[in-house]
Amino acid sequence: MSEQKISQAVISRLPRYLRYLGDLKDEGVERISSHDLSIRMHVTASQIRQDFNHFGGFGQQGYGYNVNYLYDEIGKILGLDHKHTMVIIGAGNLGQALANYMNFERRGFIIKGIFDRREEVIGKPVRNLEIQDISKLESFIKDNEIEIAVLTLPKAGATEVSKILVGSGITAIWNFAHVDLELPDDVIVENVHLSESLMKLSYKLNQQKNRE
Amino acid sequence: MSEQKISQAVISRLPRYLRYLGDLKDEGVERISSHDLSIRMHVTASQIRQDFNHFGGFGQQGYGYNVNYLYDEIGKILGLDHKHTMVIIGAGNLGQALANYMNFERRGFIIKGIFDRREEVIGKPVRNLEIQDISKLESFIKDNEIEIAVLTLPKAGATEVSKILVGSGITAIWNFAHVDLELPDDVIVENVHLSESLMKLSYKLNQQKNRE
Repeated sequence: MSEQKISQAVISRLPRYLRYLGDLKDEGVERISSHDLSIRMHVTASQIRQDFNHFGGFGQQGYGYNVNYLYDEIGKILGLDHKHTMVIIGAGNLGQALANYMNFERRGFIIKGIFDRREEVIGKPVRNLEIQDISKLESFIKDNEIEIAVLTLPKAGATEVSKILVGSGITAIWNFAHVDLELPDDVIVENVHLSESLMKLSYKLNQQKNRE
Repeated sequence: MSEQKISQAVISRLPRYLRYLGDLKDEGVERISSHDLSIRMHVTASQIRQDFNHFGGFGQQGYGYNVNYLYDEIGKILGLDHKHTMVIIGAGNLGQALANYMNFERRGFIIKGIFDRREEVIGKPVRNLEIQDISKLESFIKDNEIEIAVLTLPKAGATEVSKILVGSGITAIWNFAHVDLELPDDVIVENVHLSESLMKLSYKLNQQKNRE
């Protein structure tokens, strides 16, 4: 397999394929052609075939794709065939929202701990967990072999905590803090900068107004 | 200006420029060369100049960019020079997290209302607002000339609510629901699918494991 060379654009489309295949499974559909899938997803059938060809094509085109098989294979490529351990750092509204989001757990992302530095929230319950003091973060990550740290802290705290995370051997950071973290090359990072998404929306609003 | 033809990739980079320029302003830096900005941002100076040239270049290169001017100009392009009205639909954890995020307001995104369908939460306070019954959504949008609806609802509810939104003449939807909304062409949509971001992260984790 040539998975290493696959472009970010193709990878970015895989979760969407998985979502549509999940819906098809729920509807009891067993096989689907690239044509029918393309109509549902508002992309071209040729795009779908090209994307899937990066992974060996996933079976006969004329006969259609086996929905269950395709769903499982894409899940494997996305690393969803085994569990991932997570901690959330920052027990504010966003941290608690993510902790309470059941779908992550259904996908195999297991939240093992939630941490904060504010004394007044330490010990309080979030779902099935108790908010822990951030001073315990480093040993917790090591003892529980945590793979992913979710950063839902303000900017200043995030930079500081990212150093603790690197020191404790974290594998990946899912970063919601509005800052670019300086990390060693072997630490995976995925940023979600919500303000930037909102600004893209307001750019489009502005363009639309200028056209009027 | 040829703003209409600018690629999505360039637009996507503007909020990041704005963030770095904001930091420079806070540090009291008045001018910066594309070279120095490129070092801070870990991009090439040529990339910066190319991006800025789409908007007329923003001033003399040899002399460096005026930080305040550049910050304001990029803000204008992103539509941040005037206020935008918003409602949040879905007063769960994520909806409340967004309602409480002060930075949106500082950027001119004013949250005018928060709605939910669950009787047990209607009337409860969120920041300076009271959660309203979703049955009042349509008239509220019309009466208050709301531009942006933030959808923080489960999948099924989101599709239904999006129809009400279109009927009430909404201009844009910031969609956190894990579904592709079917909308008329003149309704702007920006999706934030958090699970897809997490899957991209786990893809990278998987790739790293396969290399080991």
